[in-house]
Amino acid sequence: MVKRNLLFTLSYDGRAYHGYQVQKNALTVAEVFQDAVERVFGARLDVTGCSRTDSGVHAKGFCVLLSTEKAIPCEKAVKALNHYLPRDIAVTACQEVAEGFHPRYSSLGKQYRYCIWNAPYRSPFWEGFAYHYPYPLDVPLLDVQCRDFVGEHDFSAFCSAGSNVEDKIRCIYACSVRREGQLVVFEVTGSGFLYNMVRIMAGTLLDISQGSIPAGSVPEILASRNRKKAGATAPACGLYLQQVYYDLPGWPKLPGTGG
Amino acid sequence: MVKRNLLFTLSYDGRAYHGYQVQKNALTVAEVFQDAVERVFGARLDVTGCSRTDSGVHAKGFCVLLSTEKAIPCEKAVKALNHYLPRDIAVTACQEVAEGFHPRYSSLGKQYRYCIWNAPYRSPFWEGFAYHYPYPLDVPLLDVQCRDFVGEHDFSAFCSAGSNVEDKIRCIYACSVRREGQLVVFEVTGSGFLYNMVRIMAGTLLDISQGSIPAGSVPEILASRNRKKAGATAPACGLYLQQVYYDLPGWPKLPGTGG
Repeated sequence: MVKRNLLFTLSYDGRAYHGYQVQKNALTVAEVFQDAVERVFGARLDVTGCSRTDSGVHAKGFCVLLSTEKAIPCEKAVKALNHYLPRDIAVTACQEVAEGFHPRYSSLGKQYRYCIWNAPYRSPFWEGFAYHYPYPLDVPLLDVQCRDFVGEHDFSAFCSAGSNVEDKIRCIYACSVRREGQLVVFEVTGSGFLYNMVRIMAGTLLDISQGSIPAGSVPEILASRNRKKAGATAPACGLYLQQVYYDLPGWPKLPGTGG
Repeated sequence: MVKRNLLFTLSYDGRAYHGYQVQKNALTVAEVFQDAVERVFGARLDVTGCSRTDSGVHAKGFCVLLSTEKAIPCEKAVKALNHYLPRDIAVTACQEVAEGFHPRYSSLGKQYRYCIWNAPYRSPFWEGFAYHYPYPLDVPLLDVQCRDFVGEHDFSAFCSAGSNVEDKIRCIYACSVRREGQLVVFEVTGSGFLYNMVRIMAGTLLDISQGSIPAGSVPEILASRNRKKAGATAPACGLYLQQVYYDLPGWPKLPGTGG
């Protein structure tokens, strides 16, 4: 039988899940997805994710790979999986990829968004989907500040304790902060991300806005490689894994690389 | 004691509620709001709404009025109400208005939005917040078609049975359909709206896109005054009461009126 490698794109509301990766005694996206896979493909197949996400973090373009000998066409597999998945997880695309493709190691980079509901009062529509920050935000200032993340840096200061990754050098290709009405969106694209890295970057920008970290400090914080110099870890609810970039036909190009 | 008339603006996720208006044996926004008012103002005060909304319909700018002799400042009242309200209802503004102001009869007009998630597969983020329409939508065509609603017309064909309103003449000031990525937004501003009027307008536009109603039919359907000539009533989940217009300081101007 010929093995087919299917790359699925998932969108999920992370509120009900303890992240993506399977855990004992906690409901995760991977486990729920594997249940649906078992219904559709008739077996509990191994599913490899592109990354881990933390409890409460959302995804719009999370990628998972599975290998199957079943001749179910991509479109049919997507429809069937969506039928069995709960309403807070959806498959939005499926693509057959070559043997040896790995959703994590074949990735050229990832894009994350951190969403802030910036209004005096909370919004029922952004509860659990954005961090409510009720104080004024100087978005043009933060947009300038965040450009200091662009380039290759040691991000040790932007990595939570508990990470056992040795090499903390990552490359940020693009970074911006923009306002869309009462929503403020911090968007960052990079080669890879350390544990809690985007949430600490977002928290640092909020601390700069609030004044507890002086504007212009990002290069110094990076150079310190000291987690204590950076800002607080912003809450999980605002974070979205937006896009994983691969060298695959029809796939979006990695921004900021001229590619 | 001096009576103060306080006009509050509410934002609510309508999924859990049987509409705004108090009903026997069904949970409504008005009832939940009155519970919060009782906690803050120490009495079960009469609360007058700007409109009714149906079960599952959302609001971003629903207005309610209450009269009180309590000297609680507006900002403090908003904070206290938000403290007691559940996470799916929020007060976003408060303004003192003159004696005789009525949230419904003093209104110059209202704006509604109907949101359509127009992608092959459902989105976990728009479940219950937009109607999922998986087929292609010709947005520029619908934008042109909907302009035929603008002006003063008898909207009998766009009113569900069960309405006991006699005068079915309403004036539409502005009407548009636009795409924001995979979301399609139908926005309509008018003097007032009949029962299910916006949902039938949206359903008619979808039927025009799908081909079961020919393009260019809106004037004919209006003239027929026959509900059967118009399209289906689009589902409640896509509808938002966006804005109520009043002649009050600091209030947005009614679009399409040159005002």
